[in-house]
Amino acid sequence: MTRFETIGIVAKPAQEVGPVVESLYACLRRLGLRVLLDPVAGKLLGAKPFDIWEVGELSRRCDLLLSLGGDGTLLHTARAAVPAEKPIVGINLGRLGFLVDISPEEAVVRIGEILEGRFVEERRLVLEAVVIRSGQAIQRELAINEAVVHRWVTPSMIELSIYVDGRFFSTQRADGLIVATPTGSTAYALAAGGPILYPTLATILLVPLNPHTLTQRPVVLSGKSAVEVHFLRGRSVQMEVSCDAVSIPNVRVSDVVRIHRFGKPLRLIHPEDYDFFAILREKMNWGRMGCPKPTRVEE
Amino acid sequence: MTRFETIGIVAKPAQEVGPVVESLYACLRRLGLRVLLDPVAGKLLGAKPFDIWEVGELSRRCDLLLSLGGDGTLLHTARAAVPAEKPIVGINLGRLGFLVDISPEEAVVRIGEILEGRFVEERRLVLEAVVIRSGQAIQRELAINEAVVHRWVTPSMIELSIYVDGRFFSTQRADGLIVATPTGSTAYALAAGGPILYPTLATILLVPLNPHTLTQRPVVLSGKSAVEVHFLRGRSVQMEVSCDAVSIPNVRVSDVVRIHRFGKPLRLIHPEDYDFFAILREKMNWGRMGCPKPTRVEE
Amino acid sequence: MTRFETIGIVAKPAQEVGPVVESLYACLRRLGLRVLLDPVAGKLLGAKPFDIWEVGELSRRCDLLLSLGGDGTLLHTARAAVPAEKPIVGINLGRLGFLVDISPEEAVVRIGEILEGRFVEERRLVLEAVVIRSGQAIQRELAINEAVVHRWVTPSMIELSIYVDGRFFSTQRADGLIVATPTGSTAYALAAGGPILYPTLATILLVPLNPHTLTQRPVVLSGKSAVEVHFLRGRSVQMEVSCDAVSIPNVRVSDVVRIHRFGKPLRLIHPEDYDFFAILREKMNWGRMGCPKPTRVEE
Amino acid sequence: MTRFETIGIVAKPAQEVGPVVESLYACLRRLGLRVLLDPVAGKLLGAKPFDIWEVGELSRRCDLLLSLGGDGTLLHTARAAVPAEKPIVGINLGRLGFLVDISPEEAVVRIGEILEGRFVEERRLVLEAVVIRSGQAIQRELAINEAVVHRWVTPSMIELSIYVDGRFFSTQRADGLIVATPTGSTAYALAAGGPILYPTLATILLVPLNPHTLTQRPVVLSGKSAVEVHFLRGRSVQMEVSCDAVSIPNVRVSDVVRIHRFGKPLRLIHPEDYDFFAILREKMNWGRMGCPKPTRVEE
Repeated sequence: MTRFETIGIVAKPAQEVGPVVESLYACLRRLGLRVLLDPVAGKLLGAKPFDIWEVGELSRRCDLLLSLGGDGTLLHTARAAVPAEKPIVGINLGRLGFLVDISPEEAVVRIGEILEGRFVEERRLVLEAVVIRSGQAIQRELAINEAVVHRWVTPSMIELSIYVDGRFFSTQRADGLIVATPTGSTAYALAAGGPILYPTLATILLVPLNPHTLTQRPVVLSGKSAVEVHFLRGRSVQMEVSCDAVSIPNVRVSDVVRIHRFGKPLRLIHPEDYDFFAILREKMNWGRMGCPKPTRVEE
Repeated sequence: MTRFETIGIVAKPAQEVGPVVESLYACLRRLGLRVLLDPVAGKLLGAKPFDIWEVGELSRRCDLLLSLGGDGTLLHTARAAVPAEKPIVGINLGRLGFLVDISPEEAVVRIGEILEGRFVEERRLVLEAVVIRSGQAIQRELAINEAVVHRWVTPSMIELSIYVDGRFFSTQRADGLIVATPTGSTAYALAAGGPILYPTLATILLVPLNPHTLTQRPVVLSGKSAVEVHFLRGRSVQMEVSCDAVSIPNVRVSDVVRIHRFGKPLRLIHPEDYDFFAILREKMNWGRMGCPKPTRVEE
Repeated sequence: MTRFETIGIVAKPAQEVGPVVESLYACLRRLGLRVLLDPVAGKLLGAKPFDIWEVGELSRRCDLLLSLGGDGTLLHTARAAVPAEKPIVGINLGRLGFLVDISPEEAVVRIGEILEGRFVEERRLVLEAVVIRSGQAIQRELAINEAVVHRWVTPSMIELSIYVDGRFFSTQRADGLIVATPTGSTAYALAAGGPILYPTLATILLVPLNPHTLTQRPVVLSGKSAVEVHFLRGRSVQMEVSCDAVSIPNVRVSDVVRIHRFGKPLRLIHPEDYDFFAILREKMNWGRMGCPKPTRVEE
Repeated sequence: MTRFETIGIVAKPAQEVGPVVESLYACLRRLGLRVLLDPVAGKLLGAKPFDIWEVGELSRRCDLLLSLGGDGTLLHTARAAVPAEKPIVGINLGRLGFLVDISPEEAVVRIGEILEGRFVEERRLVLEAVVIRSGQAIQRELAINEAVVHRWVTPSMIELSIYVDGRFFSTQRADGLIVATPTGSTAYALAAGGPILYPTLATILLVPLNPHTLTQRPVVLSGKSAVEVHFLRGRSVQMEVSCDAVSIPNVRVSDVVRIHRFGKPLRLIHPEDYDFFAILREKMNWGRMGCPKPTRVEE
């Protein structure tokens, strides 16, 4: 008996995804499951009268989402699946991602196991960025990886005041500020000098972008904390706020950006032998850079 | 009514601590409290027949410990107070520390408030390092800040294999490995490139010391995780394990070092207006390094 | 006998500069020297019929330039003085800068000494960025501190191919690339993780901005090297090239940016007791961050 | 006509080096050249009556040295070849090194080309560390990669005062200090956070090891500069000074360590198509870490 009866497929718009979508579709149908498709997967399967829905509606109608592509496609899927509280399985396109750990070759077998209930579920913290104008929340955006507040166009630094849970944290002159989830700690935040956070930690990571003050190092806060960013006026620099590289338009220097934990988690479904550390070693090239693997001590 | 009836004073062996010990002692006695002293505080107060106990026994006999000195003295106090589950108040010697936030000038007033019940208590994760030989735990040591596994004498790198919760994490060629608490994140781990962790987080921080593989970055794990370090043989390098800069003697290359959360927390007592971020800004010189404090946006 | 007969004054547009300009002007005139002013200094001295020239023409007409303000004002002065090969003296506005080492209080005395020939001259490498379109140099811009190639508006990374002296160096996915002078090594490049270069070194510093590949570290090249940056197409990201925070407009993704040593150096005049290390210690807060200055070993 | 008439072979003591030594020996003899061997190469070639000399004497008797092994073997060779001003060719054992760029498969062909005069010679700066006691130089040691001053045994930080060309540079509390050559910038100094220096630069690199003061960043100085390190007393910490991981014994806390350019360079011989950037990309894994190589812009 499976608890997943309706399965949604979200695909990356790439030629090589086609065969994987086809084999998965056929397999799921053979198992007697209902299969819905996002427009990209639908197009890859051809013009037949499939059940095709935009990813948001797809998320609401399905019990489980299969995301076919890379980490980028999974982020796209997740931004719809998280509000609907639906779990996601990530299938990569031949290259392991931090979030997509099932290879196309093993996809049919692995999905079969998952449908039989042999899986582990990770619940990961998701952030929400709220733009506040005159005390009113005027825009809200999810961030699976990170919200970034950064300078816009002109190459001068911006000045931010950061508050945490209503208390003053610091003033920063920098290219911007990353507020990341543990999931995002291996993405942009890592390039900016942040640490790696174990993905299921309930923590929020602040990483200043090239701060003028060298001692302004990455900071890890409780997942219950709310971070508020105020822009400092006086400079004509425009601001940009983006979540998972999607821009929030028309943020003003007089707006306040509040970033806190979203009420629902990212639910990632993995095969039973899921091992985050193995993915980390693979993605970070550990053990490859001139480091001869010595034999382990065995007592 | 105070819940603290017996107060212990632990002092740094420094001339300038004398007057502070004296005024605190007099104040506490005036309030009718019992006051016990560690040998250093006892000596500073003169040769009178005070109640003097080594810090371990002192911790067991008192309800509250006052630590007079710097962060180093507080670490020394904490290593005794933690097993006894006794709270500590940190009084600095004129220079703010990360752990000692009460200045000598305000000490009498602040202690008075604390005794009246006006305080906040922080419970911080403490680590324990266990040396395992042939499957037996042969030595145990607390780490308030960090446990460090590092090379000994000869300047060649060491090779470690690290396991987390029984799973292989990575092999590292480095000068060593820091396993730090959030408290320790602003100490040696920070110098080695680690992030700042909010002090009450239930997390463990791994920071490799100058790793040969540049992508081996600091990692934050759950406080429930157990870290095991195996030394890789074949090189004649000796090992050293230390906790809060106290060496564990005679660790062998064939031993395994297991580091996990200690069963009891560090209990730090602060004045009601305690603000970790203010201490951080002060200690890290934020806002001083060529960063003109601009006026905050006020709507 | 002085070899500086015509002195130019360039000032920051700030009220507090006025008195310093006045006293310097009076002093120089008393010494029988000819004094020319930039428009800002002229305005600060009032509407009298002074000799006022734009900074470019001023540089050509003077033997020595006094820059009154901060490092920003000195950069502005230098961008005009370098092509004219004229030396500059930097006078700060009360806060030491990396480039402006004479305080307003000592300005008259120090300038007097300099005019008597008691000074040291530093010759520092300057860069030139050339935008090349279809094989033609279409724009040229000096960089006293650094040339920066970076993404424009949209928050996705850019992809660059970098060539050094015609040889392929690397492909980088990053927020951008800083190509800095030793002078610029203590400015933006430092915030981005670069080293400090002694100011008179004949070297060029490459610092990638938050590179996706963590092993792409800052690189120091010979000052004789020419760096060429090619943008990788396929992504719709626009590019921005700026020199000392001044944007070069209308750079296209199909353009090539070539950065090499400019034919003339920055000539900085300092008092005889000039000590770059003292400035570094002061600006970097060395010896202040919890580091008790211990007594030096004296044999 | 070759200018190299007597060739010395220095080998790593490893079984797999044997066949390479043999084929090179045979090839060189066929060309009518005189071949001398270090004891390791001699042993690998068997017990015949070869000309075998310790590496120091070997360096003096040869016109060219072939180093067979990894970067470690080349460092060993170089420490003898540099005082004798003899050039070195580095042949690796199957894995490219920063210094050993000829693979065993192509060794015979490449050496043939080099003997015909088809090569490039790199002259790289070498350092010398001098231990000074009571004003007398009592020990001298070469450093091809780096001299390291570091704490010994006990895990507390050391305190150093550093002088450059007689001027005070800074006081540092750290695990130690690396003074590296450009050659060493890709070795230990890189692990400690230093930049990559182009190998033929005439510069010296200072990298503090985990400094307590976070703003004490790597510094690049002129190759003409002399660095003096004074130990600060008062702490019972012992010191250790090592050059290329070889310890200088019996350095006292009251000694001064002076590090400056050695009078003779490291002479490295490379095939004509030598490309340091290609080695750098290979050794640093650039272009491998999740970075899809995009097609270059071609106009």
